[in-house]
Amino acid sequence: MKNESTFIDVPAESSSAMKGKAPLIGVARDHTTSGSGGYNRGLAIFDFLLRLAAIVAALAAAATMGTSDETLPFFTQFLQFEASYDDLPTFQFFVIAMALVGGYLVLSLPISVVTILRPLATAPRLLLLVLDTGVLALNTAAASSAAAISYLAHSGNQNTNWLPICQQFGDFCQKSSGAVVSAFVSVVFFTILVVISGVALKRH
Amino acid sequence: MKNESTFIDVPAESSSAMKGKAPLIGVARDHTTSGSGGYNRGLAIFDFLLRLAAIVAALAAAATMGTSDETLPFFTQFLQFEASYDDLPTFQFFVIAMALVGGYLVLSLPISVVTILRPLATAPRLLLLVLDTGVLALNTAAASSAAAISYLAHSGNQNTNWLPICQQFGDFCQKSSGAVVSAFVSVVFFTILVVISGVALKRH
Repeated sequence: MKNESTFIDVPAESSSAMKGKAPLIGVARDHTTSGSGGYNRGLAIFDFLLRLAAIVAALAAAATMGTSDETLPFFTQFLQFEASYDDLPTFQFFVIAMALVGGYLVLSLPISVVTILRPLATAPRLLLLVLDTGVLALNTAAASSAAAISYLAHSGNQNTNWLPICQQFGDFCQKSSGAVVSAFVSVVFFTILVVISGVALKRH
Repeated sequence: MKNESTFIDVPAESSSAMKGKAPLIGVARDHTTSGSGGYNRGLAIFDFLLRLAAIVAALAAAATMGTSDETLPFFTQFLQFEASYDDLPTFQFFVIAMALVGGYLVLSLPISVVTILRPLATAPRLLLLVLDTGVLALNTAAASSAAAISYLAHSGNQNTNWLPICQQFGDFCQKSSGAVVSAFVSVVFFTILVVISGVALKRH
């Protein structure tokens, strides 16, 4: 193998000039980083706003169910007809769970702010994804179990001889159904929040 | 500014030898890539195995509930006492939903294989995260609503005069409860699957 040397003429420049020029790769990277940084910041702001909306939906669900009790205008010497959420264990679970969901959302706001300030940081984003996934399951559990009981209260079930109660307690049923709908709105928000975190992690 | 030239002695090598040596930066990148690639591949294999386990849990839940009917040994001239999942709309929803969840899991296996073969690809991983999040909500809804009805079937509710049915239909209640437990096992698997996708996206 014939050994030849090739000489490359590298013009010596003063060090300050050298510093001015970042290597090409660096420039390319900055461009893409600032691009996805801006996009991720947009995602983070959308995440924050969605969290605020989910707080309203979750706390409204808990408050509506918690104040859904109804007392019928007629009563006998011994009996007064009253219906309230704590007559049904599933509705009790619903109020507690939705209050926890609302509380978690309030506590997660600071982390969401961190993802706005540092859009490319992955640790807070992954933390939000993991916690949101768990709370999504709790929120869905509360909404679905209450929905099953609410459906039963409206329609009853002949096979099991469970009579509907909504003919007597119309207000109670209406409020508890409203609370269930609000809880499902919160479920939709949570699903979007988890997807946002996934997209943001993909683009970091 | 004094203009001096510096000469760098680059030994000319035959082109084939040159091809063998990747540039330094390339090497460094490969090293870190292969590190997280290996880790992501491990995650992807764990994801695949978890999916198989979730398929068993989901389809077992649907099959157990679907075959939970029970006929009591005594009957009258007109009446035969029988209980089956389609006596309760919530249990019907449960069977359909868990069958869908099992079907989705089977269809998601090829995507999971893709994430094993290309551990750093983000598109299939994000697709799995989005779909898994939605199906996690469906799975949780089915499990929780059936749990509410199953609890009612066991304990009844005095406030609404809904009597328990499990004293008469012990087998039916036992099987339906088993199906509910299996569905919640599937919920846990799904939660882990979503978190795995998040971690894999973070490390790509």
